[in-house]
Amino acid sequence: MTNHNYASRVQNHNSSIIADLLVQSSDPQNISFAGGYPDASLFPSADLADAFQHAVADNTPAVFQYTDAKGPQELRELVAARHAKHMGYPATADDIIMTQGGQQAIDLLASLFLDAGDGLAIEGPTYLGAISIFENYAPKYYEIPIETDGINLAILEQQLQANRGADRIKLLYLVPDFQNPTGITISVAKRQRLAELAETYDFYIIEDAPYRELRYRGEHLPTLQSFDTHHRVIYVSSFSKILAPSLRIGYICASPTILTAVAGLKSAADIQSPNMTLDALTYYLNHYDIDAHIANMIPYYAKKRQTMIDALHKYMPSEVTFTEPEGGFFLWITAPASLDLNAFMYDVLIPKARIVYIPSQAQYIHGDVANSARLNFSAVAIEKIEPGIRLLAETFTNYLTNHPAE
Amino acid sequence: MTNHNYASRVQNHNSSIIADLLVQSSDPQNISFAGGYPDASLFPSADLADAFQHAVADNTPAVFQYTDAKGPQELRELVAARHAKHMGYPATADDIIMTQGGQQAIDLLASLFLDAGDGLAIEGPTYLGAISIFENYAPKYYEIPIETDGINLAILEQQLQANRGADRIKLLYLVPDFQNPTGITISVAKRQRLAELAETYDFYIIEDAPYRELRYRGEHLPTLQSFDTHHRVIYVSSFSKILAPSLRIGYICASPTILTAVAGLKSAADIQSPNMTLDALTYYLNHYDIDAHIANMIPYYAKKRQTMIDALHKYMPSEVTFTEPEGGFFLWITAPASLDLNAFMYDVLIPKARIVYIPSQAQYIHGDVANSARLNFSAVAIEKIEPGIRLLAETFTNYLTNHPAE
Repeated sequence: MTNHNYASRVQNHNSSIIADLLVQSSDPQNISFAGGYPDASLFPSADLADAFQHAVADNTPAVFQYTDAKGPQELRELVAARHAKHMGYPATADDIIMTQGGQQAIDLLASLFLDAGDGLAIEGPTYLGAISIFENYAPKYYEIPIETDGINLAILEQQLQANRGADRIKLLYLVPDFQNPTGITISVAKRQRLAELAETYDFYIIEDAPYRELRYRGEHLPTLQSFDTHHRVIYVSSFSKILAPSLRIGYICASPTILTAVAGLKSAADIQSPNMTLDALTYYLNHYDIDAHIANMIPYYAKKRQTMIDALHKYMPSEVTFTEPEGGFFLWITAPASLDLNAFMYDVLIPKARIVYIPSQAQYIHGDVANSARLNFSAVAIEKIEPGIRLLAETFTNYLTNHPAE
Repeated sequence: MTNHNYASRVQNHNSSIIADLLVQSSDPQNISFAGGYPDASLFPSADLADAFQHAVADNTPAVFQYTDAKGPQELRELVAARHAKHMGYPATADDIIMTQGGQQAIDLLASLFLDAGDGLAIEGPTYLGAISIFENYAPKYYEIPIETDGINLAILEQQLQANRGADRIKLLYLVPDFQNPTGITISVAKRQRLAELAETYDFYIIEDAPYRELRYRGEHLPTLQSFDTHHRVIYVSSFSKILAPSLRIGYICASPTILTAVAGLKSAADIQSPNMTLDALTYYLNHYDIDAHIANMIPYYAKKRQTMIDALHKYMPSEVTFTEPEGGFFLWITAPASLDLNAFMYDVLIPKARIVYIPSQAQYIHGDVANSARLNFSAVAIEKIEPGIRLLAETFTNYLTNHPAE
C-alpha cells in the first residue's frame, strides 16, 4: 500500500496476510486447517429458504423499504428473550441492536470507545479479524497473555494499576468461550472478577461469544455479562456459527444508553442491515426451533473435534503440544520456541504436504510469538482430518529430527 | 453523549438531530417533506420476491456460506457491463466492489483516505449522511459553495492553490447529479475541469451518483469518471433508489489497486455483504430488465416533481426561492437571510401546519447557513404535495407578513 494519499491506518493493514491465507486455504489441492467456516452441510438450508420466501413474499413492499437502524422490533424481542434464557442477563428489546454479523458489532464498539492512543486490552493471542478492526483505530495495546483457564488476571491487574492517567485501559476485548484462536475458556472465578475489575477501574468489556452455544463437553459457564451489575459488559454474538454466516446477522446486548450511540454509528456506517435477512431470521425463529437445530449440530462438530484430538495424540511428536477445547471451531498447537511456524508452513508444509493453518504471528498484535498456530476442525471434511493430522505430524517429526533444537 | 469513556467522534455526532427529524418525519399526523425514501409503490416487489426465492432455493448450501468480500464475480461482471454502458467508463469486474449500499462505499473511502486533520473538500450544503461519516474521521474541511451549475470552481481552485503542504486537499466528495440536498447538477465543463484538477493537484474525487439514472427532463451528462484518465475519480452508486433501498447494495467503481485496499477495509468492517441479497440482485439483473423498470418509474417521479414545482410557483411568497432540479428526489428552498428555518419549523411550522423538511443547518458542516431547507418529493403521496406546499407557503406568508425583514 504505497499510495501517499492513503490514510495511515491502511499502510500497515494485515489484510494482505489474511488474503494470502485465504488463497492458500481455498486451494482445493491443499488440506486446509486454516479456515474459520462452519460446516455447510449442517446449515438448515431448506428451513432458511422457506424463511426467506415468506419474508420477501409476505411483507411487500415494506420489506424493500428503509427501516430502523436497530433492526425490527419483533426480531429484537425474539433475540432478547433468547438472550435472557441462555445468557443469564434480563435483556429486553431495548437492550438489543442487530448488526452486520459480530464483525460489525466489534467495529461499532471500537468506534464508540477508541480515540487514537486510547488504552485497549486484548488477549494474546486473539481473533485476527478483531485485530484488523482495532488497527484502524490506532489504540495503545495492552496484550495480556492467556493461561489454561483464560486471560492472566495478575498481569491484567498489574497493567490496570500501573496505568491510571491518559494511558489507562478504557476497553477490554475478550472471547471467553472456546476462544478464537486457542479454544481456551475463561473460568467462572475469572469471569466474576473481570466484571468487578471493570467497575473498579472504570473500563468496558466486550464479551464476544460467537462459539458459546457450540459446546461439545462439560457444562455451559455463566456469561461475564451475568455477573455485571453496572452495564460494564457489552455482549456481542452472531448467528453465523449457529445458523449461517452469509446472513451477516449479529447483535449487541448492552444498555439502551450505549445502544443509542451505537445506532448513530451504525446509521453512518451502512444506514441499516437488509430487511430481508432480518425478516427471514424473524420468521425462522418464530417457525423453527433453533435450539433443536444447535443440538442436532453438536454431535457432528464433537466428532470432528474428537477425531482431530485423537490424531494429535496418536501422531504428533511430543515437542508439539496442543489445547483440547470443549467447544468451538479451533485448537492451538505450540512447537518448540525456536520453530517459526509461518516460515515452516510456507517453506516446508505447503510444498511437502499441502497443509495450511493460521500461524500465530497474525494473531498477536506485534507478531512476536512465532511458534504456535491455529488449527480449525469445523470446516475440513471429517475424512480428511485423521490423514491430514498424520501428515502434519510426520512433517513436524521429520523437520524436528533434521533440525534439533539448539 | 456524556460518557467520558466514549471516543471524541461520538461526542459531537449529528445522529441525534437526524434521529429527531426521523421521529418528526414518521409521525403520521405530519406531512413530511423531510424523508429521502423512494416511493415504495414503485418497487418491483413481485420480481424481487421471485429473485430472492430463486437465489436461496437454487444455490444451497453455498448461498449460506462465507464468500469473497468483493461480492460474487458474476454480479460484478453484470454491474461492470451496466457501468460501462451507462456511465461511460470501460469497467470490468476487477474495477467493481459491491458494498452495503452507497453509504458503506463512502465510509470505506473515507477510511481509505482520511487521517485526522487531512484536507477534505465538500460541497456546501452536502448530503447529511456523508457528513455523519466524515465527522468520524475528523478531517480539516474545505466547504465549497454551490452555484446554479454546481460547485464553485473558482473557490475550489483558490483553496487548492492556497493549501499545498500538510493542509492540502486530499479528497473531494461530490454528488454531481441532482445533488442531495439542492437538486443541482454540475455542468459538463465543470466535470471536465474537476477531473483535470484532481490530477494537477494530486487529490481524489468521490463521485457519488445514486440519483443519476432518475432524470425527468433534459439529457444525461457524462460522468466525471468518463473524463478521468488517471484513476483519480472513484465512482459510487447504489441500487437503493433505482431498485430497493433495503437490499443495501451499492458499489464502487475504481482501479483494482484501490479496490484491493477497499476490500481489506470491507473485510474488517463486516467481512462481506449477505450472499442472498447479492445473489438475488444477480438473478434480477439476469432475468428482468432494470432499464425498463427505471424507465417505468420516471413518469411517476416526474409528475411528483412537477406537482411540487407548480405548487411552489403558485403559492410561495416571492421572498422564498427554490431550485427546479431535472431529476432526483429533492429541491432546495431559500428564505430571507434573517429567517432561521430550523427554529421556524419547530416553533411555527410543526405546531401550526404539521409540516416537516430538513433545515439547512444539518446539511452544512458548521451549521452556519440557517435560511434554507431540503424538500423531498419522492416519498410523499402525490395527493398531499399540492395541499402540503400550499399550507407551507401560507405559513411562510403569514410569518413574513408579521415579521418583516429588519
